[in-house]
Amino acid sequence: MAGTDRRQDSAEAPGPVVILVAPQLGENIGTAARAMLNCGLTEMRLVAPRDSWPNEKAVSAASGADVVLDGARVFPDVAAAIQDLNFVYATTARDRYMVQRQITPRLAAQEMRARTLAGGRVGIMFGPERTGLINDDLSLADTLICVPLNPAFASLNLAQAVLLVGYEWLQAGEQGPAERLETGRSLPASKDELLAFFTHLEKELDACGFLRVPDKRPGMVRNIRNMFQRAQLTDQEVRTLHGIVTELTTLRSPKTRRSKGGGAD
Amino acid sequence: MAGTDRRQDSAEAPGPVVILVAPQLGENIGTAARAMLNCGLTEMRLVAPRDSWPNEKAVSAASGADVVLDGARVFPDVAAAIQDLNFVYATTARDRYMVQRQITPRLAAQEMRARTLAGGRVGIMFGPERTGLINDDLSLADTLICVPLNPAFASLNLAQAVLLVGYEWLQAGEQGPAERLETGRSLPASKDELLAFFTHLEKELDACGFLRVPDKRPGMVRNIRNMFQRAQLTDQEVRTLHGIVTELTTLRSPKTRRSKGGGAD
Repeated sequence: MAGTDRRQDSAEAPGPVVILVAPQLGENIGTAARAMLNCGLTEMRLVAPRDSWPNEKAVSAASGADVVLDGARVFPDVAAAIQDLNFVYATTARDRYMVQRQITPRLAAQEMRARTLAGGRVGIMFGPERTGLINDDLSLADTLICVPLNPAFASLNLAQAVLLVGYEWLQAGEQGPAERLETGRSLPASKDELLAFFTHLEKELDACGFLRVPDKRPGMVRNIRNMFQRAQLTDQEVRTLHGIVTELTTLRSPKTRRSKGGGAD
Repeated sequence: MAGTDRRQDSAEAPGPVVILVAPQLGENIGTAARAMLNCGLTEMRLVAPRDSWPNEKAVSAASGADVVLDGARVFPDVAAAIQDLNFVYATTARDRYMVQRQITPRLAAQEMRARTLAGGRVGIMFGPERTGLINDDLSLADTLICVPLNPAFASLNLAQAVLLVGYEWLQAGEQGPAERLETGRSLPASKDELLAFFTHLEKELDACGFLRVPDKRPGMVRNIRNMFQRAQLTDQEVRTLHGIVTELTTLRSPKTRRSKGGGAD
């Protein structure tokens, strides 16, 4: 999906460090970097990557997330990669029969936000593509993150695991509304504009006989008004509707029919 | 990440239909199918795919999500693909300057659950890889879904967009706890086991002089107990701790030192 606007800054406070343990393919490091930056995360650490580093395939797979790859640091083992961190999560998809606290990405994101706000440095470990983290590495983590997925088909690739955990991190700090009406360049119609349209429409509906039954008229008017209220019309749209009603009623008399374009707008 | 258990069934009720509009690459159809099945979604519709269908590259990229690809249906245009649906969402990353209701994947997931429970058939449209959906297609949707991502780097590939929307669908129906303690094959310790360990440990700490200051003893004992309480120990772990205390105190007398293995377990 398109949609990047490079003029806008990512205003996120420094987020958790993403630690890729023994990643095998450069491509996966690149797509993981892209997923990180999608979620406003920029600090990547690599523990013993199989291929050499820096890696050309990582760069081309990152689709422009160069800032993440350029800042990535390489460590020989997990202990070295986490030594400055205060709290470390490890992602796992399989049950390892070890005694560890295990939480969802959503709960982890809330915790990470709280720990970061309190001044802590947080890291999230992701294991190699095929096998995931080994148990010795999991034992270096405070808490496991397990993504609830279809239990019959739960295998994610590395970048997708990074994306889901990063996405939850981003959503946990999201202040925007869950719903908004995109109105483009128009403003929502003022109530007097809307009421003027109702008056116009109802006058024409009276004239053509649509509202001819006195008993039913009040309920029909309410239903019609509710329909247009629900549409949350803009000022431009109300002008368009005025035009539609005018043109439709003009066409009722064949003598006035004339060539014309669409409505307003 | 590993973790698929093919013996388990996906117990999801039929979820929303995923409609890929004019997908360009077979690989992306395959990875989208994989992301769908990760989230328990199985009904895919393809509108005018660029390459021929069925598609070998889609199959190999789907990593086993054959059930999705085998059931995929091809349609000539969006109108044909959505005709039996009651409510259609369209994903978009860019502002299109059109007047449409726009919501987050999280809110969309709650809505889709409610609409599906009420017997409605719901679809979600995803546009072609490079350009996204055209405005004419967006106008066939009831509501737009816009994923809140880093505004400076918001571009997702097709499978990742499908994954995030599907993930929210799955989470909206998730009944499991957000946190659990994975205890492997062990049971949480009973309180009498735990208290017996406290008694054992405190007896040895008295004997070695660690708790020798009477004024401080009650607070120190509470702190030590809290530490072990917080760890939510299993019965096996309590046995291991008994063994550790026994062995540590035995070693205090060099005469009793003997060759031995680790603690319990």
